[in-house]
Amino acid sequence: MDSIDTRIIQMLRRNSRESFATIGKSVDLSAPAVGKRVKQLEEKGIILGYSLKLNHGKLGVSTKAIIELRIHQSSTIRTAHNQIFNYEEVQRCDRLTGEDRLSILAYFKNNANLITFIERISQYGVPKTSIILEE
Amino acid sequence: MDSIDTRIIQMLRRNSRESFATIGKSVDLSAPAVGKRVKQLEEKGIILGYSLKLNHGKLGVSTKAIIELRIHQSSTIRTAHNQIFNYEEVQRCDRLTGEDRLSILAYFKNNANLITFIERISQYGVPKTSIILEE
Amino acid sequence: MDSIDTRIIQMLRRNSRESFATIGKSVDLSAPAVGKRVKQLEEKGIILGYSLKLNHGKLGVSTKAIIELRIHQSSTIRTAHNQIFNYEEVQRCDRLTGEDRLSILAYFKNNANLITFIERISQYGVPKTSIILEE
Amino acid sequence: MDSIDTRIIQMLRRNSRESFATIGKSVDLSAPAVGKRVKQLEEKGIILGYSLKLNHGKLGVSTKAIIELRIHQSSTIRTAHNQIFNYEEVQRCDRLTGEDRLSILAYFKNNANLITFIERISQYGVPKTSIILEE
Amino acid sequence: MDSIDTRIIQMLRRNSRESFATIGKSVDLSAPAVGKRVKQLEEKGIILGYSLKLNHGKLGVSTKAIIELRIHQSSTIRTAHNQIFNYEEVQRCDRLTGEDRLSILAYFKNNANLITFIERISQYGVPKTSIILEE
Amino acid sequence: MDSIDTRIIQMLRRNSRESFATIGKSVDLSAPAVGKRVKQLEEKGIILGYSLKLNHGKLGVSTKAIIELRIHQSSTIRTAHNQIFNYEEVQRCDRLTGEDRLSILAYFKNNANLITFIERISQYGVPKTSIILEE
Amino acid sequence: MDSIDTRIIQMLRRNSRESFATIGKSVDLSAPAVGKRVKQLEEKGIILGYSLKLNHGKLGVSTKAIIELRIHQSSTIRTAHNQIFNYEEVQRCDRLTGEDRLSILAYFKNNANLITFIERISQYGVPKTSIILEE
Amino acid sequence: MDSIDTRIIQMLRRNSRESFATIGKSVDLSAPAVGKRVKQLEEKGIILGYSLKLNHGKLGVSTKAIIELRIHQSSTIRTAHNQIFNYEEVQRCDRLTGEDRLSILAYFKNNANLITFIERISQYGVPKTSIILEE
Repeated sequence: MDSIDTRIIQMLRRNSRESFATIGKSVDLSAPAVGKRVKQLEEKGIILGYSLKLNHGKLGVSTKAIIELRIHQSSTIRTAHNQIFNYEEVQRCDRLTGEDRLSILAYFKNNANLITFIERISQYGVPKTSIILEE
Repeated sequence: MDSIDTRIIQMLRRNSRESFATIGKSVDLSAPAVGKRVKQLEEKGIILGYSLKLNHGKLGVSTKAIIELRIHQSSTIRTAHNQIFNYEEVQRCDRLTGEDRLSILAYFKNNANLITFIERISQYGVPKTSIILEE
Repeated sequence: MDSIDTRIIQMLRRNSRESFATIGKSVDLSAPAVGKRVKQLEEKGIILGYSLKLNHGKLGVSTKAIIELRIHQSSTIRTAHNQIFNYEEVQRCDRLTGEDRLSILAYFKNNANLITFIERISQYGVPKTSIILEE
Repeated sequence: MDSIDTRIIQMLRRNSRESFATIGKSVDLSAPAVGKRVKQLEEKGIILGYSLKLNHGKLGVSTKAIIELRIHQSSTIRTAHNQIFNYEEVQRCDRLTGEDRLSILAYFKNNANLITFIERISQYGVPKTSIILEE
Repeated sequence: MDSIDTRIIQMLRRNSRESFATIGKSVDLSAPAVGKRVKQLEEKGIILGYSLKLNHGKLGVSTKAIIELRIHQSSTIRTAHNQIFNYEEVQRCDRLTGEDRLSILAYFKNNANLITFIERISQYGVPKTSIILEE
Repeated sequence: MDSIDTRIIQMLRRNSRESFATIGKSVDLSAPAVGKRVKQLEEKGIILGYSLKLNHGKLGVSTKAIIELRIHQSSTIRTAHNQIFNYEEVQRCDRLTGEDRLSILAYFKNNANLITFIERISQYGVPKTSIILEE
Repeated sequence: MDSIDTRIIQMLRRNSRESFATIGKSVDLSAPAVGKRVKQLEEKGIILGYSLKLNHGKLGVSTKAIIELRIHQSSTIRTAHNQIFNYEEVQRCDRLTGEDRLSILAYFKNNANLITFIERISQYGVPKTSIILEE
Repeated sequence: MDSIDTRIIQMLRRNSRESFATIGKSVDLSAPAVGKRVKQLEEKGIILGYSLKLNHGKLGVSTKAIIELRIHQSSTIRTAHNQIFNYEEVQRCDRLTGEDRLSILAYFKNNANLITFIERISQYGVPKTSIILEE
């Protein structure tokens, strides 16, 4: 990875729909040359995908929460991790040092959905819920 | 927002570089018609931007951490929030219920960088650091 | 709800036995007109009822406590909530964020009653009792 | 206080606007006789007042919270108590055993109001906020 | 109980072997009169007994500890209380507010005895041991 | 210290006013011989004094509390210890391992006295109060 | 143990491979005389062995952690202690006051090994992991 | 580092005073060849030194403690770390994740020395002391 690759990644980070032509102008390469480099970055597993930044509030989300789940039995944490990550409300699910636990970032339409979620995951551990007041 | 908009968002979430033509085939619209709808979703502030999923490990990140910062004085939390969010290592910075605190997700090249970061933010509050063991 | 309704609610909050005539003088309406508005506030579910402020100390209460009950299993919290709320000592019973728990405000004639109560609810979770020193 | 007083209090607890006539029928007394007993209960300081049960949600409240405020310096807790109790959002404010702290029950129109409140009271101590998920 | 009784108790508190004659001089009573009052204080259950202040260090105690025992199940706390109070190492055993727990003051000849004690009481709850560094 | 001394101490522990004659019968010694041994136990500093077991409830105590005081600055703990131990409400005052703190056992006539005490000692540290529910 | 023994121990602490001749010069003894004293220190159990200070980083260790293991059941702590101490990653394993727990110092080649270790020991208790950031 | 180096390190770990001749027999090398390899392991910084395992109890140590020191201000932790590590009672001093703190392993002749140590380090942070009950 050279400085041109670094620059391409920077531009795609700001806007992943940027055209290869525009990027090319910035790095003194043709559009196909940029395309080739991007393809290589994908093949090397450096670029994993292209995603969207959404205003979840406008899509009906009223409550964002970080839920720490202290796992009942460490040996079951992997199963828990996989199942929880697949719930559609879940944005991130990280296993942390400290007490053996998952930190779950999830978005909910309302408190009733949050409560249902807490009850669903409480089979794996003891949940501790914090509401996000400001992002 | 109708069911076609919902479907367009779903497809862009999976791959935000998807061409309007491919999306159009899936929703029975022409490419320009898809483009017009996407533009409207941007103008309504529903789509905020197009981002990249990167393998940070391959870009030199060795330590991902969630740092909870219990603020010394609640009245200074906004200043702290703004300054911390602007550090390049910081991916998320959320203000939570419970003890008045910020939850900071940040990526570091090594432990020395993490230590420097902790010392920098400790002017605002008491840091508590958890390393992410698995994502 | 207009400003007259707001004023009527304010007056009833201070003294819910206030006569409609007295309220009427304050808002330039006849007693029956006030009565009609109060009836509508009841029908809309804004006014839920009329209650009493009692000096519980003079009725034999010697110990007021707030008991946090960390529920053993989140899935049983609703059952717990309903049963606990029906005990006559219980004034409030709220489910909170943070660790999944109920916050119970209850009044007791003496410490022996408090102990009996703690033991009764401990089938649902781990109780943590704080005595109210000053209201 | 005899069993008739007890019965009168029970009826007023259910509905503090109940007419003395209706209460009288239940306890075999005339309306004026009931009125005289109620007056005595007020004069003895047993009945402190007549209040309203409102549906705060319909009045614009979206967030109910219990905030524990660990006081910086125990000697200032009385001043803090008085000032906090006078904020209009505050429903209850109790001083508890355990760590020297106030437990504040307060209702807010939105999260921004909650944040302002937290920052205002943080001059007296360290706030810890729990949102009420179910009453 | 009058002021003479109060004075007698004060003197016995300082030295419970004080002769009734010496106490009598101080309160202007004869020895038998003092004896009669002491007998009455015993019969009223005000004086419960006469004990000894020992230097436990010189009797072989090397470790004094306060052990908080968070009870597994509140309903078993009374049984636990009774059994623990009867162990000879135990000086006090109090049930406290906060998390439902016993606070046990106990004296041990050495750390091995402390460990044995902890393991014995751990059938009732989760022990938390603090060593007394200075009395 | 031989087995006779041990026996004498046992008997005085149960009743420190026991006459030397009665003790003597139990250990096959004359009263003066017992007195001589007791004197020696006092001189060796094994017996520190003779105290009273009182029913504090009958003397006006309504609240017994254990207050943990986390000291602001470890270097001031000795001063704090001495001053606190001299308050008449204080029965025990022990410095513990764990967080640097004093564990204070104190008896109060009422909650107002407890509050005054907490505020007085809060100049030295952060108090945490537990009420004794059962001894 | 006299001052010469103390001096010999000091020198071996700095460099346990130091020759008896060099030590002898420092303490005015012949090499065999030093050897004899060292042998006696071994026989008295004062010197338990001669160990190595290694740079574990250069031997492949990337993560050093202190793991506190709160034991499920105090009666099983000895079994746990013995088994855990025998894992090759474990450098120290100490049973502590406070909550009944083991403090385990262990070195790992990578996070995956740390996770495996945590899961293995979680059969005995609840693990709480801290990474060493600086030694 | 090849398998012979690994074997040499293993043997020195068990007994760092082992002669190169004995080690040589085990790895089929001459004593000088072993000496040359050991010298190289030292020069590469893999072997940092040769130390002693002592029975500290027989050298007058009665109390081993792990003291966690939560640092007042993260920016001063390095100064604290250096000074604390130089106290002769200190065996290890590690900076940990979680709350920003040092974990200090130290050995003391008696409780008075432990108390002096706690008071000395409390200028840097809030100490929390655990006594080692079993190693």
